[in-house]
Amino acid sequence: MLKVLKFGGTSVGNLERIQNVANIIKKIKDEGHDVIAVVSAMSGETNKLIEYAESFSKTPKLEEIDMLLSSGERVTSALLSIALNEQGYKATSMSGREAGIVTDNSHTKARIESIDSSKMKKAISEGNIIIVAGFQGVAMNTNRVSTLGRGGSDLTAVAIAGAIEADVCEIYTDVDGIYTTDPRIEPKAKKLEKISYDEMLELASLGAKVLQNRSVEMAKKLNVNLVSRSSFTPEVEGTLITKEENIMEKPVVSGIALDKNQVRVGMYGVTDKPGIAASIFTSLADADINVDMIVQTVGVDGATDLDFTIPTTDLEICKNVMKNFEKDARKIDYNESICKVSIVGVGMKSHTGVASKAFSSLAKENINIRIISTSEIKVSMIIDEKYAELAVRSLHEAYSLDK
Amino acid sequence: MLKVLKFGGTSVGNLERIQNVANIIKKIKDEGHDVIAVVSAMSGETNKLIEYAESFSKTPKLEEIDMLLSSGERVTSALLSIALNEQGYKATSMSGREAGIVTDNSHTKARIESIDSSKMKKAISEGNIIIVAGFQGVAMNTNRVSTLGRGGSDLTAVAIAGAIEADVCEIYTDVDGIYTTDPRIEPKAKKLEKISYDEMLELASLGAKVLQNRSVEMAKKLNVNLVSRSSFTPEVEGTLITKEENIMEKPVVSGIALDKNQVRVGMYGVTDKPGIAASIFTSLADADINVDMIVQTVGVDGATDLDFTIPTTDLEICKNVMKNFEKDARKIDYNESICKVSIVGVGMKSHTGVASKAFSSLAKENINIRIISTSEIKVSMIIDEKYAELAVRSLHEAYSLDK
Repeated sequence: MLKVLKFGGTSVGNLERIQNVANIIKKIKDEGHDVIAVVSAMSGETNKLIEYAESFSKTPKLEEIDMLLSSGERVTSALLSIALNEQGYKATSMSGREAGIVTDNSHTKARIESIDSSKMKKAISEGNIIIVAGFQGVAMNTNRVSTLGRGGSDLTAVAIAGAIEADVCEIYTDVDGIYTTDPRIEPKAKKLEKISYDEMLELASLGAKVLQNRSVEMAKKLNVNLVSRSSFTPEVEGTLITKEENIMEKPVVSGIALDKNQVRVGMYGVTDKPGIAASIFTSLADADINVDMIVQTVGVDGATDLDFTIPTTDLEICKNVMKNFEKDARKIDYNESICKVSIVGVGMKSHTGVASKAFSSLAKENINIRIISTSEIKVSMIIDEKYAELAVRSLHEAYSLDK
Repeated sequence: MLKVLKFGGTSVGNLERIQNVANIIKKIKDEGHDVIAVVSAMSGETNKLIEYAESFSKTPKLEEIDMLLSSGERVTSALLSIALNEQGYKATSMSGREAGIVTDNSHTKARIESIDSSKMKKAISEGNIIIVAGFQGVAMNTNRVSTLGRGGSDLTAVAIAGAIEADVCEIYTDVDGIYTTDPRIEPKAKKLEKISYDEMLELASLGAKVLQNRSVEMAKKLNVNLVSRSSFTPEVEGTLITKEENIMEKPVVSGIALDKNQVRVGMYGVTDKPGIAASIFTSLADADINVDMIVQTVGVDGATDLDFTIPTTDLEICKNVMKNFEKDARKIDYNESICKVSIVGVGMKSHTGVASKAFSSLAKENINIRIISTSEIKVSMIIDEKYAELAVRSLHEAYSLDK
């Protein structure tokens, strides 16, 4: 098999850990696989360099930031190659440029446009393990080094796996896979063996520290089999994120996600004026505010109430936008003491009664549901934040996820 | 004027010093000059990376060392560009690759083969200050990053100055120029305004911490006007190193150099066998030992004594080589308590009595001269090490270098 492996900053955080990663790679190579490993900068390095830059300028030129930040991954790739060579393995480092990665011209948040994998293919055919400096490429117009922004090394790995048609792309972090829910909340949470791309995207909060949505979306698009596993316990099989067709037994519910970073905005007694809702949500979108759930209720007296949720980080901007609409409502309030609990599963498509089981499960605990929204594979509920953990645990049990 | 400036690791050793370098560059730009600045890695960075590499392997692949080490200069070049941009100056960093520097394939000690300066010329014509990551290029065969070895950033600066036909190449260090002798030995030492390439090469020990011979040789070959000056006192004019024709008043003696890192090897009563000396020096050359001065004396009894000097660092290897010749001499001994004092000056060519003044000056102090060697512009003398400073001071006075 041809395997693309990705090791994040924590996995290569010091010299001992880089040696540990070399050992993982050796074992996989010894099993007869070809290996391309994508590495991040040693943890802390990138932040240190950003601090350096910010000491000179609050608005540095983005091309220079890319020149600066791309150095960290180069260091790790060379060190890991040296460690492998010392053990008698043929290994070669490659910068993003050498690996043939071409991006658009959006420095510091570039998107990969194409990968010329010929150099990598040649190196692999000569028996080399390739260590690619992640997070970087070359901007197509200027030919200068570019970086891919947050989660960039994951993207590098997934894109290479797609371009070179690797059998699997394994993302190594300090977590050994995706769980049915956050094990810190529900110790009975179980590691999932397989999960579909779409489920993973909906369970983002469970994988937030493990897989960024941007990488999962790219894996879905390029049909790359993604594995989330740990560099600290490499003997433990991780979770395979793959296309739905590859999952034979489709569980009705795969996992329970919790998101506490939500604010509920309530507009009461909204003026009965055509297009008022459209006007509000256009203004919020223009301000780059990501509105999540929306509920509109019309009371018996004809007065309309509008409820919606936004990320906590957007609260101040949202308040500013909403000032323009104060005249259109009797009252506007903001409730930060809420959270969103979601149940996710591809099996929902073909099963009925999934949502109602959630509602009754919460009702049994006297938890009021403020807003509900559903998609093909997800049911999300806004509840009071104080019930967050209780709700997760009762839903986890209701769908027998600990079995 | 088009000026190429070079700032070494100490000059960019921390963020404050990088800001200081930005200020120097701004001032030169404000005076109406075009500027290309070549920078080293922040002091300590390269050693740290070498330590990292050595923790994995005592014999790392040289290509990987180059990938590793070249990152430090990239960081400095980006930071300096950011600092200049913040002050409203157009500046752009360039890696060795971007600056068009192509080297041979001797990784970690590559030689510059060619420089395609078109990209630099374009950036300059657009009003940019260019900050080049020194010490690196791209190996011509593999297209991988290469580094130039010790003094590599100086070489980068000189080679760029040559390729782009700059008016001057200013090498900034923590020393403000070349002195008539080491001021720590003779406080009356005076800074030289101008000196020829050849004198500078002979005075290597005076410039050792300032200019490496490799850079001076390249400057001579490319006819680059080199200036040695300090980034800590940029208002002080440095020393111009240029071709002899540019120096109107040629001093008979320009400076006094002292080299304590010499060992005198004495072979007494050498067998009168044809080719024995040739055989010894061939063996030493094969062992990469740099033999400096050689004296052969034939006594009245026909027995030959052979004296030569080598760098102290080569002593152990030399002893090993000399074991093969023990049978050819009555006795071989090694004297580390000697030093070499040299007087250097292009004016010697057209003046007589220069050497005899040196001899009588030392004689006056009862300093015995063990070995003498002369070249067109230099007289070197081996004396007992305990007289080193005294000899320097009396020669300095004898040639009125403090005037």
